[in-house]
Amino acid sequence: MSRVLNKKLRKKITTAEEAAKLIKPGHNVGMSGFTGAGYPKEIPGALAANIKAAHERGEEFMIGLFTGASTAPELDGVLAEVDGISFRTPYQSDPIMRKKINAGISEYADIHLSHLAPMIWAGSMGRLNTAVVEVTAINEDGTAVPSSSVGNNKTYLDQADQIILEVNSWQSADLEGMHDIYYGTRLPPERQPVMLTHTGDRIGQRNYKLDLDKVVAVIETDAPDRNTPFKPADEDSKKMAGFFLEFLTHEVKKGRLPKDLLPLQSGVGNVANAVLAGLMDGPFSYLTSYTEVIQDGMVDLIDADKMTVASATAFSLSPEYANRMNDQAKRYRDKIVLRPQEISNHPEMIRRLGVIACNGMIEADIYGNVNSTHIMGSKMQNGIGGSADFTRNSFISAFVTPSVAKGGAISCIVPMVSHHDHTEHDVQVLITEQGLADLRGKSPKQRAKLIIANCAHPTYRPLLEDYYEHAQKVCNGLQTPHDLRLSLSWHQRFLETGTMQPA
Amino acid sequence: MSRVLNKKLRKKITTAEEAAKLIKPGHNVGMSGFTGAGYPKEIPGALAANIKAAHERGEEFMIGLFTGASTAPELDGVLAEVDGISFRTPYQSDPIMRKKINAGISEYADIHLSHLAPMIWAGSMGRLNTAVVEVTAINEDGTAVPSSSVGNNKTYLDQADQIILEVNSWQSADLEGMHDIYYGTRLPPERQPVMLTHTGDRIGQRNYKLDLDKVVAVIETDAPDRNTPFKPADEDSKKMAGFFLEFLTHEVKKGRLPKDLLPLQSGVGNVANAVLAGLMDGPFSYLTSYTEVIQDGMVDLIDADKMTVASATAFSLSPEYANRMNDQAKRYRDKIVLRPQEISNHPEMIRRLGVIACNGMIEADIYGNVNSTHIMGSKMQNGIGGSADFTRNSFISAFVTPSVAKGGAISCIVPMVSHHDHTEHDVQVLITEQGLADLRGKSPKQRAKLIIANCAHPTYRPLLEDYYEHAQKVCNGLQTPHDLRLSLSWHQRFLETGTMQPA
Ligand SMILES: CC(C)(COP(=O)(O)OP(=O)(O)OC[C@H]1O[C@@H](n2cnc3c(N)ncnc32)[C@H](O)[C@@H]1OP(=O)(O)O)[C@@H](O)C(=O)NCCC(=O)NCCS
Ligand SMILES: CC(C)(COP(=O)(O)OP(=O)(O)OC[C@H]1O[C@@H](n2cnc3c(N)ncnc32)[C@H](O)[C@@H]1OP(=O)(O)O)[C@@H](O)C(=O)NCCC(=O)NCCS
Repeated sequence: MSRVLNKKLRKKITTAEEAAKLIKPGHNVGMSGFTGAGYPKEIPGALAANIKAAHERGEEFMIGLFTGASTAPELDGVLAEVDGISFRTPYQSDPIMRKKINAGISEYADIHLSHLAPMIWAGSMGRLNTAVVEVTAINEDGTAVPSSSVGNNKTYLDQADQIILEVNSWQSADLEGMHDIYYGTRLPPERQPVMLTHTGDRIGQRNYKLDLDKVVAVIETDAPDRNTPFKPADEDSKKMAGFFLEFLTHEVKKGRLPKDLLPLQSGVGNVANAVLAGLMDGPFSYLTSYTEVIQDGMVDLIDADKMTVASATAFSLSPEYANRMNDQAKRYRDKIVLRPQEISNHPEMIRRLGVIACNGMIEADIYGNVNSTHIMGSKMQNGIGGSADFTRNSFISAFVTPSVAKGGAISCIVPMVSHHDHTEHDVQVLITEQGLADLRGKSPKQRAKLIIANCAHPTYRPLLEDYYEHAQKVCNGLQTPHDLRLSLSWHQRFLETGTMQPA
Repeated sequence: MSRVLNKKLRKKITTAEEAAKLIKPGHNVGMSGFTGAGYPKEIPGALAANIKAAHERGEEFMIGLFTGASTAPELDGVLAEVDGISFRTPYQSDPIMRKKINAGISEYADIHLSHLAPMIWAGSMGRLNTAVVEVTAINEDGTAVPSSSVGNNKTYLDQADQIILEVNSWQSADLEGMHDIYYGTRLPPERQPVMLTHTGDRIGQRNYKLDLDKVVAVIETDAPDRNTPFKPADEDSKKMAGFFLEFLTHEVKKGRLPKDLLPLQSGVGNVANAVLAGLMDGPFSYLTSYTEVIQDGMVDLIDADKMTVASATAFSLSPEYANRMNDQAKRYRDKIVLRPQEISNHPEMIRRLGVIACNGMIEADIYGNVNSTHIMGSKMQNGIGGSADFTRNSFISAFVTPSVAKGGAISCIVPMVSHHDHTEHDVQVLITEQGLADLRGKSPKQRAKLIIANCAHPTYRPLLEDYYEHAQKVCNGLQTPHDLRLSLSWHQRFLETGTMQPA
């Protein structure tokens, strides 16, 4: 049975090939999709074919691509492959997309996940020509049931000149009721407080509003989300998770955190999942999560009755867990709320709720600055994502990384980071498999001592001590001692010799 | 007549010398004071004398000093002069304090102005032993009338083990009623929305609550605030103000800003005042200001009926305007609200109100990163202040600087900033006397072209073009092209030769 129940939209059902023709060269296109969940499955491929054909005819055809965050090969991958993306925002992590960005083919604007929707609405991102959004169903009344990610869909549906919908019957019909689509946002001077005071509060409506006249095509799909399975947690990840949980336990003991903690946010990745796994055996009950994505570990915590509610904007589940969610969505929808990313990542809520944030990073420096995005200063890895939405506004903000990368050729603790995403003002806790540094309320010099002693790898620790000693002797002021001739020389050495270690 | 009307506290009136004895070596002391307004006038001097005497006896005596922001020579100056400050936070700008920080005598933690109060409350800054707060009067009921700055006083009075009050009769008694002291803040998980939706809203009470048992001394003073008079706006400042107003006018025309703009925040300094002066002749009426400090220019706008209301945490007025304020506080108190700095700088309000922020900077780089704090990477100038509270959360965030400093020996637009306070993700508009670059929604490469063309000084423009061209050739990825051997070489050249210009 078709899930397109609205009569008017029933008439607009067509093929991906036909629908894709409505996307023209130069269009800014807002697509659904957040970490391999809820992205359109067919239009991007059909569009890529059109772009490829145009290029073969010698015609120019590229689009500006806006999403929720990273997507999947069927979206970023196929469009990047044909050099179809002139401009990309906000977060991406597809290998081909990354290659095109670093080759200078696609311009990439790395915008905070919470900022993009209001910026589009305010008109500062240019006109949004087309929205392509996956939904679970279209109701008779013309509202649309969101799919496995919400992302910026509300804004794309609102703001685009024309709308193309993919109705994916692979998504469980029982997702209806899990979402909280908040329509109370306004542009200033009309903005009001967002009246959400607990992780699980619902302040919006279940489904998207649609302007039916703007819907130019509906296509029906039946295809799974594509998320990468997690690797089992390695020893280092378990150690880092251990340090973090020890720290939290200490804070509870000191009376600086409530005994059931505060809402948790965790970045994607192995360490994040190891932390969640650690919580399974930990002393905390009644946990909550106010975060970007629902990961396997959270589902486990919910099943074990250790987590009472989790709020996010998308699923980021391994195939096994995604199937479980699809089978049992009805059961989970009391414990999980999916929101627009401008709400899941909203500074107002993150600060109010007092979120405990823990994110991955590429490198940190001895003064506590963090690089989340660039390899050796110039090359984009993924993007800042929501890490700064959380870091700046959270009650505790932690960053984790193994102390070395590339088998020890790279130290992830360096004299000066090669790109700054989170400054010394925002980073409170650093964690590697070597240990944890609590930087709160410390001056740069106090931080340097802690970071070098607790977080650096033994191979690099004496080199960092040398740099720090030397910098104090030659610098022009002792607030943040640097020797600018040497501060980025480790990165340069790696680029030239393949290792940060001196010959 | 004494302004200490409460009987219990009347008995605690004493001299500054006696009161200062209550401050012991190692104390963390929270003092009032924000840009030369409302700082204690006598205790710091008496304390400095005690410290000096102790040092002469060979004894250790230093304190941790917490304030609202920068203060005056009578506070930061006297205590720094005697090497009395082991730890300082959050913002400072006193020449002697700066010297001691850069000499490594005082550790300085550069914390966002909105973050400090909640961090102290949460216990992550250690114990606060003493509060020293200037007030205008103590009422019979034991509440205290705030003085010309609010800053962190509410928190210091709440959290300190003991309280010393200075009651300054130089401050106008008519200040009572101008303040809005919000007692609704909580620690998570108890935090609630801050129900402030318009610049002029009042959500708190007029005066400070006091725990009378904690007040260990009261002293009476009669001394003026000490603010630096402004220099008359120079040609460059007028040009920058002109570019900014032109930009705002353009945004209104495009429908991206309401016709009376949105609440303005402006950093301290000459350009800020030139912008305010420009608004006097501009097309906008019914302006409002949601900012840190009330400057001369705002008083003019209020007098001219161009500004309906201004919200801040302190005055920062020239002596002439400070006297006027003192004489006519009754008249101004309908149009001016002074709030705790955790509210004046609160991300929740700044974002909700849609503040238009404009702050000074030391340097920006071609990719739009901004350095507000460090000279040549290591040496502290003042601190980040509230610039990041505003920049990250504002509707439009602009930074201004002349394109060169030190007579042209320094380019304020550089390949890579030597310290990062505001990252590429947060900086939207850059302005120098050369022009304006609108960076919203642009990739780093798109930004570089604009910044070099519009903002760099003609002497340095070709050098920046060369760097950018060269970096694209040698970098390991074209997202943010850098040559890490050269990216900080301009600063290094300045340190070695006294100019950034190549020989
Ligand atoms: C920073 C981030 C890339 C780390 O993710 P991760 O999965 O732990 O990363 P990995 O350890 O697999 O490293 C990714 C790559 O960077 C390399 N790398 C790691 N540290 C490095 C360093 N210091 N210098 C250079 N390269 C480094 C790895 O070797 C790996 O290279 P490969 O792709 O060639 O194998 C990721 O957390 C991220 O994208 N963060 C930003 C967004 C964010 O925080 N979102 C959270 C939700 S709010
Ligand atoms: C950045 C800031 C210092 C600029 O203030 P300003 O009054 O415009 O600064 P000036 O132009 O007088 O410069 C201050 C000094 O830095 C020097 N300077 C300016 N640009 C420089 C550069 N690019 N490199 C090195 N030195 C530089 C000046 O020559 C001057 O030196 P001096 O003291 O030896 O004369 C000031 O805005 C600040 O402290 N900002 C951070 C806090 C903030 O933004 N608060 C706003 C309220 S929210």
